[in-house]
Amino acid sequence: CITRDDSSDETSLLMQLCAERYYISSEAFRTRSCTYGPLGTELKKNIIEQWTSAVRSRAYVFGINTSSLSRTCEEPVMIVDIRALNEILNQDSFTKDEASQKIQKLLKDSASVRTSLLQGALQQYAQALELVNRTLPFGLAEIGLCHHFDNQLRHSSSCSFEVTESSLVWFCSPRTSSQWMDYWAHQRLQWWRKFALGPSDFSMCNVVDEELREGTSHGVKILYKFPWGSETLETLWSLGDTQLIKTHQGSCINLQCRDGRKSVVPHVISVSANVDQGMLAYLFNSLQLLKKTDSKQKLHQRTVLKLHPSLTPVKVALDMGRGSNSELRQVCEGLLQEFLEVGISTWPGYLDTMSLSLENLHTKYDEMGVLFTVVVSESTLKSGLLLVRNRDTTIRETMHISEIKCYLLKYISASDNI
Amino acid sequence: CITRDDSSDETSLLMQLCAERYYISSEAFRTRSCTYGPLGTELKKNIIEQWTSAVRSRAYVFGINTSSLSRTCEEPVMIVDIRALNEILNQDSFTKDEASQKIQKLLKDSASVRTSLLQGALQQYAQALELVNRTLPFGLAEIGLCHHFDNQLRHSSSCSFEVTESSLVWFCSPRTSSQWMDYWAHQRLQWWRKFALGPSDFSMCNVVDEELREGTSHGVKILYKFPWGSETLETLWSLGDTQLIKTHQGSCINLQCRDGRKSVVPHVISVSANVDQGMLAYLFNSLQLLKKTDSKQKLHQRTVLKLHPSLTPVKVALDMGRGSNSELRQVCEGLLQEFLEVGISTWPGYLDTMSLSLENLHTKYDEMGVLFTVVVSESTLKSGLLLVRNRDTTIRETMHISEIKCYLLKYISASDNI
Repeated sequence: CITRDDSSDETSLLMQLCAERYYISSEAFRTRSCTYGPLGTELKKNIIEQWTSAVRSRAYVFGINTSSLSRTCEEPVMIVDIRALNEILNQDSFTKDEASQKIQKLLKDSASVRTSLLQGALQQYAQALELVNRTLPFGLAEIGLCHHFDNQLRHSSSCSFEVTESSLVWFCSPRTSSQWMDYWAHQRLQWWRKFALGPSDFSMCNVVDEELREGTSHGVKILYKFPWGSETLETLWSLGDTQLIKTHQGSCINLQCRDGRKSVVPHVISVSANVDQGMLAYLFNSLQLLKKTDSKQKLHQRTVLKLHPSLTPVKVALDMGRGSNSELRQVCEGLLQEFLEVGISTWPGYLDTMSLSLENLHTKYDEMGVLFTVVVSESTLKSGLLLVRNRDTTIRETMHISEIKCYLLKYISASDNI
Repeated sequence: CITRDDSSDETSLLMQLCAERYYISSEAFRTRSCTYGPLGTELKKNIIEQWTSAVRSRAYVFGINTSSLSRTCEEPVMIVDIRALNEILNQDSFTKDEASQKIQKLLKDSASVRTSLLQGALQQYAQALELVNRTLPFGLAEIGLCHHFDNQLRHSSSCSFEVTESSLVWFCSPRTSSQWMDYWAHQRLQWWRKFALGPSDFSMCNVVDEELREGTSHGVKILYKFPWGSETLETLWSLGDTQLIKTHQGSCINLQCRDGRKSVVPHVISVSANVDQGMLAYLFNSLQLLKKTDSKQKLHQRTVLKLHPSLTPVKVALDMGRGSNSELRQVCEGLLQEFLEVGISTWPGYLDTMSLSLENLHTKYDEMGVLFTVVVSESTLKSGLLLVRNRDTTIRETMHISEIKCYLLKYISASDNI
């Protein structure tokens, strides 16, 4: 998803760090595909989980799952059976016109790929009415793959790219739609800022009138200030009832809901975020360069990926200090299994037999955004004590092996409520 | 995903129930698209979560996220920019051969849609080696959208359909690959059966030699006995090293891992489940028809969707009994918010103002698979007591409003370990 010509220091530093630290594979930079390494995959999963729990914790929001293919043929890119197309092209007896007609027929029978989740939600509206007994407001939420198109890159191999979108389509009374628009815009900005190290880099702006599409009365964008400029993470559109009526042609009465004593066709607010872009924003936002001088007055730079504890992909790394390799490894494996069983995302650092100094280990884990580093050593075998280091405070403390799991679980669940 | 000619009673009963009870919209039956209602969406999400936590709880399994588009051009279906194709077809000056050449070039620059997650994982292998310091075994796990093709339906509008696949690609030493194959086959069958009401409907069989593809030494299928016959939910292939070497052409040394003192190119075991098909299997498996006679010796049939407590989409439904509507509604809304905040999936039954008898309400919720029904009534306002009914025991008990949340949380988390 990322090809930037920008070569500012911060950008290239982060890109290198992401490639080295298992977030985004180097290949993904080249091909603009959303191919993530284990840490990037986990970060994306965590963002999606937080988004879902934030949106679904509001009453009357229902999850839906719609097809990524669309039969409406309004999208510019289609899924085509190449064998069938080649059969037509290789049929010598066809004239050009005949071949062209056959191809058009093939296209007519093919499906397009969706560019947003809005249409799917609008189609589900009629069924959803039953859920809420025609009571407004309510919402339909979905997370799914969409294809975006870059017109400027058309005809090139990267004319389309995939994006994971999270979408909430909110149906409300026309009377209250502008209040709801304000409510959701506020909620969404707050959500982005909740997990940010520098919340002020996330901002909101109104869409200018010229950019509004037909039937849309108001638009709001949530932006992130990347080093190369601001880009949109999420958009909110107040769509009125135009698109809803268009989707359900000629059945306005069936679309009506109760608004007090009146029956109304609801207004639609569409909230849609680009999860991949959001992930990139959080990566940039959490990159912290710290300068410190050591005891010899030498200047050191510390690079830390201070991702929010709820989002950071690895909560704890397990490493071995000095001592009998095989015995320490057994302790590590036991702890790993114990952590995984309760869902603590753990990094098996002890597999790496290139023994790094503790200093270098911390550098590596800081760049990975690892929240805690646990070192098992000779003294663990004797007394059960582990060395536990916190990414954010850089404090190292000893802790008994029997306490570590509960400590981590408490820390992680507490950070959800920060 | 479901178009079956089978019209056995059980099938049509379940299909009707799924459409009426918000699992799979009626449209989805027709178009074979994976369009799910709120309950189907939640069920699918729960299956994916359970799959992920089962696979990821094993050490050395890393999550990855690869592109749903493939540039290898080996897949039969491609994503094509229709405007570019039409431009070529509408260009009068082109002869048929020229047009054909231009189209071939366009196709060459286009991407295919993936049919499985295997290729993506094999491509990530080299990067993943670094994670584990070339130590075997390890695995790469992914859940994502794939397109399947039905050759018999080719040229028709439903030639391709979407499937959510969950995939684990396991890299192990050639020495131990057959043991690992047995291990994973056993694990996977156990996993499917864990959530089943009738575990014996899930079975395992070896793939006959004729069905094995090149380089594949062994295959195992996990089947479910649907009313119309057995179908595959998950497949395990022991792929040897052929495909891994093919993917990373001509760099065998880079592929090597340590196996004791030797260096070996690992063998690959591919485990891949069709989540949509699995969801259907659990729906069929959990459908229970119970006959009972009432006090007047009249025979009643009770239909219950006895989905496993961890999988069932709605854990609790909130309803109002007799009493002041506005006051009871306030209590319901308070409880709803309280439940949603701790992640208990709750159904706002009180919105439905068509007052059903308690008997009819239970019938409806049994068909939805709702685990608990909580009724707020006049006595709740007086004494704080709620009526709580359990789907599986059908026992109704009273419980104080202050205790209900903890009770539900405990019940749900306990059921995870059944």
